Amino acid sequence: MIEFRNKKRIEVCFSPALFEYQKNKEDIVVVVDILRATSSICAAFESGVDKIIPVGSGDLAKEYKEKGYIVASEKDGIKLDFADIGNSPSDFAPEIVKGKEIVYSTTNGTKTIMLASDCHAVVIGAFSNLSALIKWLMSQEREVMILCAGWKNRFNIEDTVFAGAVTDALLQDSNYYTVCDSAKASQSLWLQNRNSLYEYLQTTAQKQRLMKNGLDFCIEFCATIDTTKKNPFFRK
Amino acid sequence: MIEFRNKKRIEVCFSPALFEYQKNKEDIVVVVDILRATSSICAAFESGVDKIIPVGSGDLAKEYKEKGYIVASEKDGIKLDFADIGNSPSDFAPEIVKGKEIVYSTTNGTKTIMLASDCHAVVIGAFSNLSALIKWLMSQEREVMILCAGWKNRFNIEDTVFAGAVTDALLQDSNYYTVCDSAKASQSLWLQNRNSLYEYLQTTAQKQRLMKNGLDFCIEFCATIDTTKKNPFFRK
Repeated sequence: MIEFRNKKRIEVCFSPALFEYQKNKEDIVVVVDILRATSSICAAFESGVDKIIPVGSGDLAKEYKEKGYIVASEKDGIKLDFADIGNSPSDFAPEIVKGKEIVYSTTNGTKTIMLASDCHAVVIGAFSNLSALIKWLMSQEREVMILCAGWKNRFNIEDTVFAGAVTDALLQDSNYYTVCDSAKASQSLWLQNRNSLYEYLQTTAQKQRLMKNGLDFCIEFCATIDTTKKNPFFRK
Repeated sequence: MIEFRNKKRIEVCFSPALFEYQKNKEDIVVVVDILRATSSICAAFESGVDKIIPVGSGDLAKEYKEKGYIVASEKDGIKLDFADIGNSPSDFAPEIVKGKEIVYSTTNGTKTIMLASDCHAVVIGAFSNLSALIKWLMSQEREVMILCAGWKNRFNIEDTVFAGAVTDALLQDSNYYTVCDSAKASQSLWLQNRNSLYEYLQTTAQKQRLMKNGLDFCIEFCATIDTTKKNPFFRK
């Protein structure tokens, strides 16, 4: 069916396991994994990485490592022993990644990217590129799906509050609408917590997991808005 | 492993499709389908129904009808033609259900009940029995899983805000704790909207669906707290 549409739909999906019920291949999909994959990908782009190649498993990352690629890889928050770097945004510093191709595997983030890879476009979203992302989305004549990576298919707060930030910004533009309860609920959480984002991310289950491995220092960076103007796009 | 536990865990699951990632057979599962299955089951118990027999499909409900049972059945909000009554709480009036056995099939609610049927206990939750439910849960030495029926596996606001009400009440008792982001987010939505519950339920996608069939009048009942002191339990 061909349609001329007046307004663009916004939808939020809280888990990769729910994506099959909401997926629309014509959508732009914003993949979100605030703690830490999509924040790290933004950091890498800002540091001048040439390419990030997401792969869906540690095994696959290891194969790439054996072929000579630089590999960023973690499982359950811990850097895999064969990997060059882990999954903290600070791992993707210019001296390490500038001009390089990085193969990247994480517990939730890269798997989620792969799920959306047959959609019209896949773009990475994090607080790091919030304004740049919103500006770009508004320039596109496409419906928007914000896909939260969650944690092992579970809902998480950090991705949801980011989805709410994007939803809230787009709904201020009369070209957008939503009928999606997930979008509305995430907008509510954003409006409730936008002025204490860092503190809000401290309440998450993922904070506890990161802290066990001494990695929760990254939350400050991941809660900081607009550290880059670059939008990382997925290209096949 | 045998443990003596000091505190009881609270968890919230936003969709039947996520339950496999959170399910624990030792839990008490509170099944929630505010608009309308669990509100209707509470109404039926208050009306003096003898038994509610949930079945997972309209076809199965039809088989029971042919065996002589009274059948309440709907698909996508509309009463199936062979059914005696639909899925509005007002359908379960005393003159229709008192002392009777009702076979019950709905789009989301009964399927969700079946998913939890092998857990330690399954109890129905709605605003209708909120205080009775909380009192009973507190009397049990068991972890609590609040399982939202959602809509065709999608997240919905009405079940979530109810999950938040239960979470908030239990967390005021020092015997409970949560590390679950879904529980925390639903508690936030409850605290934000508890004083305008009826208006909040008017913002849901399900309100639009019900309105198309002239069935949204039930929202007033479904948003009313403590219309019954009875807790419907699932027994095998």
